[in-house]
Amino acid sequence: MAISDFERPLDSVAGQSVEGALGAASQDVVWNHDHVLDLDDFSYEEIESVITLAGKMREVLDRRIARAPILRGFTMINLFFEPSTRTRASFELAGKVLGADVISVSANTSSVVKGESLIDTVKTLSAMTADAIVMRHGMSGAPYLASKYTRASVINAGDGSHAHPTQALLDIYTLKQRLGDLKDKKIVMVGDISHSRVARSGMWGFSAMGANVVLCGPPTLLPSGFLVNERPEHARSALPDVDIETNIDVAIKDADVVMALRLQKERQQGGLLPSLHEYSRLYQVTSERLSKAKSNHILMHPGPKNEGIEIGGDVASGSNSTIEEQVTNGVAVRMALLYLIAQKNQREN
Amino acid sequence: MAISDFERPLDSVAGQSVEGALGAASQDVVWNHDHVLDLDDFSYEEIESVITLAGKMREVLDRRIARAPILRGFTMINLFFEPSTRTRASFELAGKVLGADVISVSANTSSVVKGESLIDTVKTLSAMTADAIVMRHGMSGAPYLASKYTRASVINAGDGSHAHPTQALLDIYTLKQRLGDLKDKKIVMVGDISHSRVARSGMWGFSAMGANVVLCGPPTLLPSGFLVNERPEHARSALPDVDIETNIDVAIKDADVVMALRLQKERQQGGLLPSLHEYSRLYQVTSERLSKAKSNHILMHPGPKNEGIEIGGDVASGSNSTIEEQVTNGVAVRMALLYLIAQKNQREN
Amino acid sequence: MAISDFERPLDSVAGQSVEGALGAASQDVVWNHDHVLDLDDFSYEEIESVITLAGKMREVLDRRIARAPILRGFTMINLFFEPSTRTRASFELAGKVLGADVISVSANTSSVVKGESLIDTVKTLSAMTADAIVMRHGMSGAPYLASKYTRASVINAGDGSHAHPTQALLDIYTLKQRLGDLKDKKIVMVGDISHSRVARSGMWGFSAMGANVVLCGPPTLLPSGFLVNERPEHARSALPDVDIETNIDVAIKDADVVMALRLQKERQQGGLLPSLHEYSRLYQVTSERLSKAKSNHILMHPGPKNEGIEIGGDVASGSNSTIEEQVTNGVAVRMALLYLIAQKNQREN
Repeated sequence: MAISDFERPLDSVAGQSVEGALGAASQDVVWNHDHVLDLDDFSYEEIESVITLAGKMREVLDRRIARAPILRGFTMINLFFEPSTRTRASFELAGKVLGADVISVSANTSSVVKGESLIDTVKTLSAMTADAIVMRHGMSGAPYLASKYTRASVINAGDGSHAHPTQALLDIYTLKQRLGDLKDKKIVMVGDISHSRVARSGMWGFSAMGANVVLCGPPTLLPSGFLVNERPEHARSALPDVDIETNIDVAIKDADVVMALRLQKERQQGGLLPSLHEYSRLYQVTSERLSKAKSNHILMHPGPKNEGIEIGGDVASGSNSTIEEQVTNGVAVRMALLYLIAQKNQREN
Repeated sequence: MAISDFERPLDSVAGQSVEGALGAASQDVVWNHDHVLDLDDFSYEEIESVITLAGKMREVLDRRIARAPILRGFTMINLFFEPSTRTRASFELAGKVLGADVISVSANTSSVVKGESLIDTVKTLSAMTADAIVMRHGMSGAPYLASKYTRASVINAGDGSHAHPTQALLDIYTLKQRLGDLKDKKIVMVGDISHSRVARSGMWGFSAMGANVVLCGPPTLLPSGFLVNERPEHARSALPDVDIETNIDVAIKDADVVMALRLQKERQQGGLLPSLHEYSRLYQVTSERLSKAKSNHILMHPGPKNEGIEIGGDVASGSNSTIEEQVTNGVAVRMALLYLIAQKNQREN
Repeated sequence: MAISDFERPLDSVAGQSVEGALGAASQDVVWNHDHVLDLDDFSYEEIESVITLAGKMREVLDRRIARAPILRGFTMINLFFEPSTRTRASFELAGKVLGADVISVSANTSSVVKGESLIDTVKTLSAMTADAIVMRHGMSGAPYLASKYTRASVINAGDGSHAHPTQALLDIYTLKQRLGDLKDKKIVMVGDISHSRVARSGMWGFSAMGANVVLCGPPTLLPSGFLVNERPEHARSALPDVDIETNIDVAIKDADVVMALRLQKERQQGGLLPSLHEYSRLYQVTSERLSKAKSNHILMHPGPKNEGIEIGGDVASGSNSTIEEQVTNGVAVRMALLYLIAQKNQREN
C-alpha cells in the first residue's frame, strides 16, 4: 500500500504534510515485524521508532479535529475472544482516526476451544482481505498460532497471562514523556506478577530501554524462574534481568516508577491469597508507601483499577499519576503500530 | 470545532449551504448545555431551538442521499449498560449521517455495580478523546455522575426510571409537526407512570411547551407527590404542574394527544398488577376509548409496543398514530443535539 | 440513488471508471428484485448478472486499496437474530468496501418470539431510513415476513433451515471461476440435507445454472418430497429436479463438484444420528472417496468446518479445495447484490 496509492490526497498530520511529519520521522524507522506478538524480540531501536511515531500520532489526537486519514482502504478486524471495553475501543479509535475501516468480531472462547476452530476463524477473516487482525484471547500463545495461518498482520491485544505488548509500549511512551530516558530508572511493578500479561510484556520492554525492573508481590503470586541466578544455565539469557522483592517497602524505596497491577479478585478463590483485606494491607500502593519512592516518582496503573485494593484512591488521581495519560497515549501507540504495519506491507507488495 | 476546521468542504444541508441552512437557523439558537441529562432545566426557547434544527436535519434524512457530513472528526461513543436496539441504532445513525465516527461499547451493569467503576469507565473513554458519550444505564442518575468526570458531553439515552430526554424531544417535535403549537393542548400519558423515564421527561418537556399534562394509570403505578397540592410546600415548584387521573375514560376525554406507555411485564411479578389481563381491560388504549378524545387526536407510543396489552393493534397502525414518524424524527432530533453540542464545544475551545 | 447523486466523485472500480467498469457490465444486467430472499425465483440470466458484477467487485477486492466507495450515503443494517461471525463480517466488509454505512444490531430471538415483535423491529429500523436490512433469523420465513413491512430491501443472510441465497450465489461464482460453465456438471452435496439452508438454496441456484444436483446423506437427514417422482402431481414443478442417493460412493462417482455440509452436532441428541463416529465413517468426505470423483473435481464447504467429522483434514486444504476462495468471493457477491439493490431503488425513486 504505497502512500500515493491511497484513494484520496493525504491530510496533513499535526500541521505538516504526511511526508514531512511521518516521513521525516520514518526515515530512521527501524521496523521489521510482520506481527506484534510480544516485545521479547523488539530491540531498543525498534521501540524508539514506535515511540517517536506515537509522538506524532499524539499530536494528531490533540488537534481539534483529531483525524489523519492516511490509512483509508485499510481493513482492521478486532477479534476479541475475551470481553474488553478499553483495549477494544482504543484500537477501534486508533483505526478510525487514521481512516481505516474497523470490523469488530466478538467470539466466544467456548465455541473455539479447539485449536482447529481458531485457525478456521483466522483463515476466514484473512480471506476477507483483512490487513490487520487485532486479537485478544484467553489462551497464552493463541495470537502466535493465528499468525501462522494468515497473511494479515496479527497484533496481540492480550493473550492469557502471557503478553500485552501494546500496553507495554504505551507505558514506555508515557514514561519517556515524563522522564525523557528510561536508562537506569528503577521501575517497580507491584501485584499479581504471575498472572499478569502486563507485567510480562512490561518486563521485556522496560529492560530493552535500559531500566532496572523490580517485581514485587506475595510469594504465591510471583513466578518462579524470573531471577537470573535461579534459572538453569541455558535459560539465563532467555528472560530479561529483573529483581524480585516480596517486601513492598523495600521494593518502592527510591523508585522512579511504581506500577500497581490489577488484582483479579478470582485469585482469592484459587487459594493464592488469604483474603483481599490481607492483600490490601500488605501490598496496596498507598501515599505513605509512595513517600519512600523518589519525590518526582511516577505512578502507573494499566486499568481498570480496584481502588482500595491494589491502589489507594487518593494516589490514583494525584499529580504523580499518569493513569489517564496512559489511556490517551494508548490510542497514539496503536495508531503508530497500524501505520508501521501498513507501511511494511506496502514495501513488500 | 469551527465549521471551517472540518477536514473537508462541508456538504450542503438539505440543498442549501450549511451556513445558509443551519447557520440561519442557528443564529437564533438558544443553547447553553454541556450535557443533555434531562429536560427539567430546558427553557421553552431552548426546546424550540432543538426542534427548529431537527426540522433541518429531517430534511437531510428525507434526501435521496441522507448524508450531511458536517461532524467529520467528531467521536461519539455509545455506552449502553442496558440492552437497546432502537435507541442505540438511532444515535448511531444520527452520528453517521453527520459523518461522525461512532464507537459502540456494550457494558454489563454487573461489572460496574460500584460507582467507582462507572467513573473509571467514563474517565477512560474520555481520555480517548471522545467528544460525546451517549449513555444508557439502569440506575437513575448515572449519567449525572458520569458528566462530572469527563470533558466529553454526556447525552442521557435513558437512566433507570428517571429520564429519557431525547425521547421527550422527539415527541415534542412530532407533535409540533402535527399540531403546530403545544400551548394548552391536553396530553394524556397512560400506563406505568411510576417506572417510566419516558413519562418523566415528557412531563417536563410538554409542560415547558405550555401543554396540559395528564398522567393516567392504576394507583399502584402512579407516583406519589406529583400533584401540586399534595406536595410539601418547599417542593411545589420542583415539579411541573400535572393532573393525575386513575380513570382512563375521564383522562382521555377531549384529549389532543394520547400516549400509551410500554408496560414492563415484570411489574406483575412485583405485585403491582393483579394480572396483565386485568390491566389490559382497565387501561388499554383502544379505538373505543380514543373515540372520546378529540377527533383529530394524535396517538403516540415510545416503542417497543406490547400490542393487545397497553395498546390495541388496530389503533397502533391507524392514521392518528405517529409511531413510525416518532422513530424517524428521533434520528433528526439526535442529529440536532449532536450538532448543538459540537458547536458549543467549538465556541469554547 | 443516481450514481451522479453520490456525495463525491466516484472512485474508479478496478482501474476503470465506475461507468466504464460497472456501467458496461450493468448494461446487460437482468435484475428485478426488491429483496433477496431465496434463489427459487432467480432466472439463469439474473444469476449471470450477479456473477458478472461479482467478478468486477472481486477485482476491486484484489486491488491494493480494496475500496470503491460508490455506495456512500447508503445505510445497511445487519439484523442478526442468530450469532454469526463470518456471514455478518462478510456483509459488513462488503458494505464498507463500497463506502456504505453499516449498523449492526444483534437481537435475541427470545425477545422477539412473537411475530409482532419482529414486525415492530423491522418497521422501526425501516423508519430510520435504512436502505437495506441484512437479516439472519432462526425461523424459516422470517425475512419474507420482514420484507412485507419495510421499504428497505431485505437480504436473507440465512433463515432457519430454509434458505441462504448469498451462500449459493458465492458458490456458483466460485464454480464458474473454476469450471467456466455449470451446464450438465454433477454437483453432489453431502450431509445433513434436511436441516441445511445452504443445500436448499444451492439446489435452486445450481439447477437454474443447468447443473445436475445430487443430494447425499443418511436417510434420517434427507428430506422427503425432493424426488420428482415421489411428489404429488401439483408439486412436481415446485421444486427443482434433483437426485437423491444415500450411498456416498455412488453419489461421488464422476462428480465435478463435491460439497460437504456442516454437521450440526446437536443432531445427535435429536436421535437422527446413531453417533458422530458412525456418521463420519459412513459420510465423511475423504481423499479416498474423492478419488472416485473426476480428477479435477472441486471440493467445497460453506464453513465453519468440523474437520474429522464431515470432512477430512487433508482434503480441506488440498488444491481441489475452494474453501478460502469461497470466503473472498462471498464478499464480492454481497458487494454485487448491494449495488444492484441500490441501483434498482434509484431507478424507482
